[in-house]
Formats: sequence, structure tokens, C-alpha cells
Amino acid sequence: MARRRGSHSDITGPKIREAALRLIAQHGCAAVSMRKIAEDVGLQVGALYNYTPDKQSLLFDLMETHMVDLLAELGKLPALDGPIEQLDQFVRFHITYHLPRRDEVFVSYMELRNLSPENFERIQALRSQYEGALEAILEAGEASDDFTFTDRHITTLSIIAQLTGITNWYREDGRLTIDEVATIYCDLIQRSVASAQA
Amino acid sequence: MARRRGSHSDITGPKIREAALRLIAQHGCAAVSMRKIAEDVGLQVGALYNYTPDKQSLLFDLMETHMVDLLAELGKLPALDGPIEQLDQFVRFHITYHLPRRDEVFVSYMELRNLSPENFERIQALRSQYEGALEAILEAGEASDDFTFTDRHITTLSIIAQLTGITNWYREDGRLTIDEVATIYCDLIQRSVASAQA
Repeated sequence: MARRRGSHSDITGPKIREAALRLIAQHGCAAVSMRKIAEDVGLQVGALYNYTPDKQSLLFDLMETHMVDLLAELGKLPALDGPIEQLDQFVRFHITYHLPRRDEVFVSYMELRNLSPENFERIQALRSQYEGALEAILEAGEASDDFTFTDRHITTLSIIAQLTGITNWYREDGRLTIDEVATIYCDLIQRSVASAQA
Repeated sequence: MARRRGSHSDITGPKIREAALRLIAQHGCAAVSMRKIAEDVGLQVGALYNYTPDKQSLLFDLMETHMVDLLAELGKLPALDGPIEQLDQFVRFHITYHLPRRDEVFVSYMELRNLSPENFERIQALRSQYEGALEAILEAGEASDDFTFTDRHITTLSIIAQLTGITNWYREDGRLTIDEVATIYCDLIQRSVASAQA
């Protein structure tokens, strides 16, 4: 994992990460050399290697940071009582967090295949933690008879794909605000899991 | 667009396309040279250029063929009367068609950014045609009071993302058959759009 080393890297670190993310999202990791990233930031390639040992570490760092930040923000949400309110909260959180981070989302899906097996497992563990937060809401709703579904885990994965897919088509200058999109998805998703008596 | 030229290319064409699809899905288009594709198929790079003028044409051909074949298969489905039955049919079709074509799905999403503007428009037009088939079902269901939703077009895009996301996690040796997965998704999706009186 890339580590920031002292004050110099505290400044260049974010620049390197921003450039790496942008270039990898545009061209794919395999087509972006360490030299190209260094050039983009205005560094000698040797200085880039001071920041991160190799491209695999840099890629893992980008994907890990994305997941760690996501989980940290999720953890800051106010605790709500009912599963219906919790599900609305999760849906709105997922949409508002991911829509401005299209490159991170794209790289996170696209470059999974380029992670070493060990790094892949670590990213998968973080993803499972995030999915687990949604699955816990569905489980609570099942227990309270607010929700019903054939398969809780598949329903979790289905909702996450449904929400993440918004990054493929949403345009800030389009006809809907992020808030309007979130309202549409809250409705679709609540209805897809609502029990008949709810 | 790549064109097959006579009997020689009738044989090598599918081989080239299979290799290109596999290599691009694995490494990304920018990282796969024409030379690498030619080597994989056991051709001289000159012979590859006899088949396709450049990598852009080859990439477009892969993505166009995927969409054209998809639309052709969709067109072969038996005509059903009610929108509820039509929606189930579409969901099952989408899942059973895409799950065995993970590389095609991956390349179709990942490499959109690498299409020339003109080729991008042509692929988008084919995608719109496919989305339009689902949207027409939703529209019919709205007219017959079987379905209700806040926004028909967004609901269309949401369902397609939900279904396509299955390719990210489905494993043939996992606990569910494709048919079982399809049943779970039919239930989730029907409920998400069902009108209260349906």
C-alpha cells in the first residue's frame, strides 16, 4: 500500500492519486505506465517510486481508499430506528456519495481483475462490509415484517447494482437533480422489498 | 467496421473476434496491440489488417455485434399479451442471454470511452433500441394499470442496471441456478413496479 512519507509526500500524495485515478479511468491500468503518471504530476519517475513501490500498490491504494472513505462516511450517518427509514437513508447515501465519484466507481469495477489475489481479497472484504450494512437493514426489516424477499443476499447485491448503475447515465446538466433521482430509487427499492401488510 | 472477405476470413473472423474479446476484457483495449491479437490467433499482423483496418474498427465491431445479436434474439421471443407476462419474459431473457457472455458485457461497458464519437453514437442508438423494448413494456403496463412508477425512463435504466449487475457476482458453481436467479429478479422487479390494485 502506498504510504505518505513526511511533508513532501503529504503534498504530492493527493496529486499522484488524483492523476493516477484520472489516467487509469481513462485508459485502463495496463495502459498507464508509472512514467506517464509521473509526467502528469510533473515528477521524475524516481520520485514517484519514493511514494509507491509499484503500480499494483498504487492501484490497490486507490481502490482501498475509495472503500475505506465510503465506509467511514456510512458510519457517520445518524442512527435511525425503523428499517424503512434506514433503507431510505442507505439509498440516498449511496447515490449522493457515488455520483460525484464516477472515476472511483469505474476504476473500482474495471480494475478488480488487475489486482493481485491478495489485494483482491482485501478489497472484497471491504465490499462485503459495505454490502453487509445494507443486508443488516434488510434483515431487520424482515424481522419486523416490514420487508419480505426470496433471497436476502441476492436482494442486497441487486439493490447495490441498481444504485451504482446510476453513475453510467446520470448527467449533472440533465433533467433530474441528484435528490430527485434518489426519490425515484427510494420508491422503486422500497416497493421491491415491502411486505404486503406494510 | 470489420468485414469478412471471402472464405478465408469466414474462418479467421470468428477466431480474431474471440481472441480480441478475451484479450480486451482481460487487459483493456488500450493495452492490447493489433500485434498481440494477431499473435494470439497465430496470424501475421498484416493478415489481421486484411480483416480489419484498425483496432477502433475491431472494438466497434465487437460491441456492435453484441448489440445486434442481442436485439435479434430479443426479436425472436414469442409475443405475449399482458405487460406482467412481458416483463417476466424480458427479465428472464436479459439474464439468460447475458450471464454466459460476461466478457461481452464487461467490454461493452468498459470500452465505451474508447469509441470514436461516431461509433459511440451508433452503439448508443442500439442500446436505446434495447432499452426501448423494456420501456414499451412498462408503458403498456402503465396504460393497463398493472404498473405504476414515478419516472418510466429512469425505471427502465434502473432495471437494466439491476439485471446486468448479476454478471459481476454470478458463478456457475454457486448455490443458485440461472433459473433460480431469474425467479428472484422477476419477483423483485415486478413488485417494484406493480400498481397497488394489481
